[in-house]
Amino acid sequence: MKKPLEGIIVLEFSQFMAGPSAGLRLADLGARVIKIERPKTGEAGRQIATKNMFQDGSSLVFHTTNRNKESYAANLKSPEDLEKIKKLISKADVITHNFRPGVMEKIGLRYEQVKEINPRLIYATITGYGTKGEWKSKPGQDLLVQSLSGLTQLTGNNSDAPTPMGVAVVDMLCGTHFVQGIIAALIQRAKTNKGTWVAVNLLESAIDFQLEILTTYLNNGQEKPVRSETNNAHVLLQAPYGLYQTSDGYIAIAMGKLTELFNILKISETTLLEEPFENRNEIKEILAKNLINQTADKVLNLLQSEEIWCSVVNNYHEFLNSKEFEELKMRQEVKLQNGKKLSTTRCPIRINGQLLNSETPAPRVGEHSEKLNLEFEL
Amino acid sequence: MKKPLEGIIVLEFSQFMAGPSAGLRLADLGARVIKIERPKTGEAGRQIATKNMFQDGSSLVFHTTNRNKESYAANLKSPEDLEKIKKLISKADVITHNFRPGVMEKIGLRYEQVKEINPRLIYATITGYGTKGEWKSKPGQDLLVQSLSGLTQLTGNNSDAPTPMGVAVVDMLCGTHFVQGIIAALIQRAKTNKGTWVAVNLLESAIDFQLEILTTYLNNGQEKPVRSETNNAHVLLQAPYGLYQTSDGYIAIAMGKLTELFNILKISETTLLEEPFENRNEIKEILAKNLINQTADKVLNLLQSEEIWCSVVNNYHEFLNSKEFEELKMRQEVKLQNGKKLSTTRCPIRINGQLLNSETPAPRVGEHSEKLNLEFEL
Repeated sequence: MKKPLEGIIVLEFSQFMAGPSAGLRLADLGARVIKIERPKTGEAGRQIATKNMFQDGSSLVFHTTNRNKESYAANLKSPEDLEKIKKLISKADVITHNFRPGVMEKIGLRYEQVKEINPRLIYATITGYGTKGEWKSKPGQDLLVQSLSGLTQLTGNNSDAPTPMGVAVVDMLCGTHFVQGIIAALIQRAKTNKGTWVAVNLLESAIDFQLEILTTYLNNGQEKPVRSETNNAHVLLQAPYGLYQTSDGYIAIAMGKLTELFNILKISETTLLEEPFENRNEIKEILAKNLINQTADKVLNLLQSEEIWCSVVNNYHEFLNSKEFEELKMRQEVKLQNGKKLSTTRCPIRINGQLLNSETPAPRVGEHSEKLNLEFEL
Repeated sequence: MKKPLEGIIVLEFSQFMAGPSAGLRLADLGARVIKIERPKTGEAGRQIATKNMFQDGSSLVFHTTNRNKESYAANLKSPEDLEKIKKLISKADVITHNFRPGVMEKIGLRYEQVKEINPRLIYATITGYGTKGEWKSKPGQDLLVQSLSGLTQLTGNNSDAPTPMGVAVVDMLCGTHFVQGIIAALIQRAKTNKGTWVAVNLLESAIDFQLEILTTYLNNGQEKPVRSETNNAHVLLQAPYGLYQTSDGYIAIAMGKLTELFNILKISETTLLEEPFENRNEIKEILAKNLINQTADKVLNLLQSEEIWCSVVNNYHEFLNSKEFEELKMRQEVKLQNGKKLSTTRCPIRINGQLLNSETPAPRVGEHSEKLNLEFEL
C-alpha cells in the first residue's frame, strides 16, 4: 500500500514530546522524517529517561516517539555543517522546530531566511506560549501549561486539590494540531506552489482542548466550573456521569434515563431527579451508596439491558490482556539496532482498512548521515 | 487571506463531539462544511444541553462545535431526499459520519456504494471501538473509553479511586486524528485522483494517547503504572513533578535539579536524592510539608532564579482575565441568527502569522437547504 504522505521530506529539529510526536505521525502517514541532531549526544530527549529506562543508549520514551525516522548529525554552529543543512532544506518539504523564540534566528534559519533557500518550504514551529507577551520566554512544558490554563481545576472531586491529568495531554494535543497545520499547508502549496509558516503553541492547544467548558464560562456570567462533590467526571454534566465503586471493582456510568436507573436500583428518592444537574451531588451520593453493595457484573447487566451507557473500569493488565485489545492490532514491534525488540503501539488512523504499521526503529544519532550525504550530495 | 482548505466540500453526517469537532477544524482551515441533518430536530447534539444551557434553540455545546458550518435538512429514509443527498455526494470531497456499524449500510451509503457515485470521495468514519470484536456495538462514549482503556488509573494519587480526566479527552483527540487522516487522504488524492476510506475510533485514539506509558508497560515486564502517594502528576516521572500547596495557593513544579531545589528550600534529607524515582513519595512529602508554610510568590521567585521549571496554578477567573490570555486573541465572537452574540475560542493553528477566525455561527437546522438546492441543482 502507498501511504498518503509518501514523497514528502520532513526535517525535524524538534525535541522532547510535542514536536517529535507530530513527526511520528507524519512518518506513519508515509512522510520521510529526518531528525537533525547534534553530533554524539543527539536530541535532548534521548537522555531524559522515565524511571531510568534506556534501550540501546537512548531513553525508552525517545524510542517511542522517534521510531520510523532517520537521523542526520550536524553541529548548527559549524559553518560547514550549516551549509549542508541549508542544502538539505533546499530539498525538503517541511521543517519543524520547537526552539525558544530567538534560537533559529541566531543560527540564520528563521523563516524569512529559509524561505530564500526554499520558497516552497512549510516552516512549522511549536512554542510554549506564542512569540509575544510576558510568558514567551517561560519554559513550554506540559504540567506548567495545564496549571496556567485552568485545566487542573476540572479533574477530581470538588474538595480535592487541583488535579493534573496524568498524561502529557497538552503535548499530545499540540502535536496533533501541529500535524493538522502542516498537512493543510501542504494542500495549499499544491495550489499556490508557495510555502507557509505554520505555528502552534502549547497554551493555545490547551485552550482549544477546553473549548466546551471555556465557551460555557464565557457565556454564563463567568461562573467558575465546579467539580461535583463525589464521583466527578465532567463539570458540565449531570448525574450519574462518573465512576462508581461496587463490591468488586469500579464501573463507569455515563448516560441514560435517570428514572430508569433509579427504578432498576430500587432507589426511592425520585424527587431529586426533577433537577438532575442542580442535585447532582445528592444523586451521585445515593447511587454510590447503593452500588457499593452490589457486584459490578450484576449492575452492568441490569443497566445495559435498559440501555444505560456503562462499562467496567479496566486497569492496564485487564485491558492489555483483553481479547478486544488484541483484536485492534494496536501493538507492533520494532527491531532495535542492537538486535533487541521493542513493543509499542501503532498509528490510530486506518486507510482503506489497512493499518499503518512500521517496524523501523528510532535511529541512532547520525545513523543516516553518510547515506544522506551521498543521496543529496551534501 | 486564503485559507489552506478553501474549495474543499465536506458533508458532515457526524453527531455529538468527536466528529463535529473535526468538522469545526476543517471549517476553520477553510473547508466548506455542510451538516446533513434530519428535518426539524436536526443533529442529536442540538438537544443535549450541559447545565440546561440553550441558545437560539440548540445547546451551547452544539454552538461551540458547529459554528462556521452550513446545514442541509434531509430525511435519509425518504427516497426523494436520499437522491438529493447522493447528488450532493457526487459534488463533495469528503463525507464524515459516526453512525454505529450497519446504519449507513442500511441507507445504502456505505463506502462501496458511495464510491460508485463519486470515486474521488474521502469517506471518513468514526466508531467507538472499530468494526470487529465484541465491543463493536457498545456505545462509543468518552467516559466509557477512558474507563476501558486503563486511562483512569493514571490520574490522581495512588490511594484515590480511578480518576477520569474532566474533559472529553478521547473525543477531542479522536477528532484531531480524524482531521489528520482526512487531510492526508486529500493529499494522496491529488496524486492518485482516487478517494479513500479513512477510519478512526475512540479506543485506538485513547491507546495512542497513552503510547508513552503503554510502551513502558509493554517493555517493562508488564509492571502496572503506579501513581505517587501524594502530588501525583505523571506515573513515569520522578519527584518533584506535581502540584504543591503553599500558604496562599497551589504551584506546579515540573523539572529542575533536585539538589538545587533542596538547597534553595533548605531541606537536609539529601540522601533521598540518590534514587529520585524510587524515593519520589518521600521526596514529594517532604517538599509538600516545606512549601505549605511559604507564599507562592516567594517560592516561585526563588525557584525560577535557579532555572527550576515552575508556575502558579490558575483557576478560570485568573487565567481568562490575565493579560497573557488577552494577548493570544484566542477569544472570538459569533453572531447568532437571533441577534445575540456568543463568545467562544478560535482554532489553535496560525498560518503565516494570521489567526483563523470566523464570525459565522452554527446554522439553524436546514438553514442552507434552499441555497444548496439552487447551487447544486438538487
